[in-house]
Amino acid sequence: MKIVILGGVAAGAKAAAKLRRLMPDAEIDLYTDDTHISYSACGLPYYIQGNFADYKTLLVRSPQEFEAQGVHIHLLSRAIKILPELNQVLIQDLKENRAFLVEYDQLVIATGARAVIPPIKNVNLKNVFTLRHIEDGIAIREKALTSRHATIIGSGYIGLELLEAFVELGLKVTIVEFAPFVLPIFDTDISSLIQEQLAGISDNRFQILTSELVTELYNNERGEVTGFKTGKGKEFFTDMVVICAGVKPNIEFAREAGVAIGETGAIKVNKHMRTNFQNIYACGDCAEKMLMIDGAKVWIPLGSTANKEGRVAAINISGGDQDFEGVLGSAVVRCLSLTMSMTGYTEKKASLAGFQPVSATVTKFDRVGYMPDVNNITLKLIADKTTGLLLGGQAVGAGDADKRINTLTAALIGRLTVEEFTKNDLTYAPPFSPTIDPLLNAAQILLAKIKKD
Amino acid sequence: MKIVILGGVAAGAKAAAKLRRLMPDAEIDLYTDDTHISYSACGLPYYIQGNFADYKTLLVRSPQEFEAQGVHIHLLSRAIKILPELNQVLIQDLKENRAFLVEYDQLVIATGARAVIPPIKNVNLKNVFTLRHIEDGIAIREKALTSRHATIIGSGYIGLELLEAFVELGLKVTIVEFAPFVLPIFDTDISSLIQEQLAGISDNRFQILTSELVTELYNNERGEVTGFKTGKGKEFFTDMVVICAGVKPNIEFAREAGVAIGETGAIKVNKHMRTNFQNIYACGDCAEKMLMIDGAKVWIPLGSTANKEGRVAAINISGGDQDFEGVLGSAVVRCLSLTMSMTGYTEKKASLAGFQPVSATVTKFDRVGYMPDVNNITLKLIADKTTGLLLGGQAVGAGDADKRINTLTAALIGRLTVEEFTKNDLTYAPPFSPTIDPLLNAAQILLAKIKKD
Repeated sequence: MKIVILGGVAAGAKAAAKLRRLMPDAEIDLYTDDTHISYSACGLPYYIQGNFADYKTLLVRSPQEFEAQGVHIHLLSRAIKILPELNQVLIQDLKENRAFLVEYDQLVIATGARAVIPPIKNVNLKNVFTLRHIEDGIAIREKALTSRHATIIGSGYIGLELLEAFVELGLKVTIVEFAPFVLPIFDTDISSLIQEQLAGISDNRFQILTSELVTELYNNERGEVTGFKTGKGKEFFTDMVVICAGVKPNIEFAREAGVAIGETGAIKVNKHMRTNFQNIYACGDCAEKMLMIDGAKVWIPLGSTANKEGRVAAINISGGDQDFEGVLGSAVVRCLSLTMSMTGYTEKKASLAGFQPVSATVTKFDRVGYMPDVNNITLKLIADKTTGLLLGGQAVGAGDADKRINTLTAALIGRLTVEEFTKNDLTYAPPFSPTIDPLLNAAQILLAKIKKD
Repeated sequence: MKIVILGGVAAGAKAAAKLRRLMPDAEIDLYTDDTHISYSACGLPYYIQGNFADYKTLLVRSPQEFEAQGVHIHLLSRAIKILPELNQVLIQDLKENRAFLVEYDQLVIATGARAVIPPIKNVNLKNVFTLRHIEDGIAIREKALTSRHATIIGSGYIGLELLEAFVELGLKVTIVEFAPFVLPIFDTDISSLIQEQLAGISDNRFQILTSELVTELYNNERGEVTGFKTGKGKEFFTDMVVICAGVKPNIEFAREAGVAIGETGAIKVNKHMRTNFQNIYACGDCAEKMLMIDGAKVWIPLGSTANKEGRVAAINISGGDQDFEGVLGSAVVRCLSLTMSMTGYTEKKASLAGFQPVSATVTKFDRVGYMPDVNNITLKLIADKTTGLLLGGQAVGAGDADKRINTLTAALIGRLTVEEFTKNDLTYAPPFSPTIDPLLNAAQILLAKIKKD
């Protein structure tokens, strides 16, 4: 049995490791256009920030470790064409610039996603970066250490993590967001609050430009970026730019081969992570996901999901029978003293999906008010008015805002109604929560709203 | 309508406030043998520790505020007899030492619990305390500020909170536990680990004696405690002693009146918090609770539960129809840098309740290993082997051990099996959790154990 895996960051590396254990006799080859495999891309902002000195800390398993177990790793080798009828893939060797064909019995597509580059004049200047790979992180850190000002285009999860990193390194930072508020994946009421709270802790270390876009980059005679111009015609100096304006799945070569693409633009897979071809699987950021709440197709590319999908694909390839039940879109991001977290549907997306969302938002202490270190958190709960079913939640604050969202994920898995959730018996002690946790406050208010009229 | 409430800390005060809102015309009288009402007893260890200067911080609502709303507060007034056929209660005025009868249409028993005093010779010496009331907290803090050594008898939640308080105040502390390990409400494997971890952070500031009891107290000529002797015959000096050897419900006067007592020794109530008498309710620490997992009767006296029960009793007295669905026994306690948390059944109690418990325990980082402030947590998950249903969990560690138990509470409310719980999509970012959260690690191991044989 010849197994070929395309891509090796999270899903691909996980699939390779799991397949090795499950199928000791299979021939396993992993091809990636990257220079590294099996690394924690989510850790790059913390490497840049200097939380650890050696980027190798991010490597989960080295090519040598894989090779020692008989998994052949081919770096700088990009898949450019799949020939499904022939069970072959055409690979381009980026070092020697030649192409060659490899055969497979089973193929795993785990080619991930790449940064979206907005239409900006002069975008290819020196010191203009994206952040996906280890080398990106190394280059950004190196440049940041000698810079005074950094610009971040986009204020999603990675944009905000980089904002923290640059501020901690002592740079002045400008973050430019096209949407009216930062972190636009959240509901507008929460995004606007996040923006207000970020502004409140800025202390002249960073500025946020919203409803703005970068249209042009300026450079010096060495081809280095020196500034930028916005859509509203403002001009700014900068020493470096990182583009964090979203990602898109690497699926073009798969589409060309007839691999079905879902409505979200990512590769369509069933619960076994199999594509429309019997012996081609897809997992990780290049694959479409299913929302566990209602089975809706979504594309929410996250590292934790990629790991799980790689594992499930491997189990099924080896003859097992394991379903990947889908995601909730749960995510958390820290930016300096603020934590922002969400799971499930936002109110706006719940409406689009045909629910009748109703929500309750509370701002409360995260522990008893007389304790040192008490902080506020704002918590929004969303439910369907017709059924009372919980649909999602968002939290933001200097307080303990992350794990409360995880209490909600279990409620979503259990398909609890708001009323059922109000019965929850959460732990209580003064250092950890108020007598009535903000989660229960919000649930009680939401229940009253649902019951009214 | 005349409503009489007996007791006024959490359940009684909450019932009074809620009844006032729901029944503006009712005559409401609250009798308590305490000198304060409506206070956060759970905050007393933090007052003793000095987290805030004024004990009044612990008062939620003053007698004056209640009076302003027409709720009559009678301090130092103890209920000594209920005459259910006459709808009267005999009250003893502790200030003037006289008794008087009051009439009620509806009676709320919220008399709480009191400390159990073990059979110790000379237990009534000066500087021997229990910790239930505001004055206890004031007296303990006052004595601690001039003491060099404190002894705590019992290592439950309050014992461990006091251990932290005394250590933070710079006292040398001895904690004496009759059971083989501290915090014996946890399973023995976790209790023994807690003890080991506590010993690891002691730094000569405190010592733990287990499988030991205090048999005798020694005193000086002023009647002050100066030391103690243990069952194994060891002798120790001490400047003060706090007895935290458990509590029992204040129900004797109710039992005498024919109010039914449940198998747990607390007052039997239905989901409306009503006793066997149509117009007598009980709530808070004096009332029996139901475990939501299987409907078993339990007595787990906790402040957060008392608040909810007081609210439910008030709603039903006012003609509403609200059930209190019960508890999970969720609790958390901090002791210095350690957090200990639990919910649902322990393995030992699950066995006694007729389940076939199977468990998985993992010790993992609480966030990604390369992050600063990373710490270990140990997490134990318990499920029923036959049905796969989750039954409970326990967590301990220097890491983020509290909120992960709250994720489990929602899973218990939703009656999730371990397999369903493994599908959970928890939030992930390096500062908050490893890629695979310890909760999911433990669930996966537990699932494998359940599926095996």
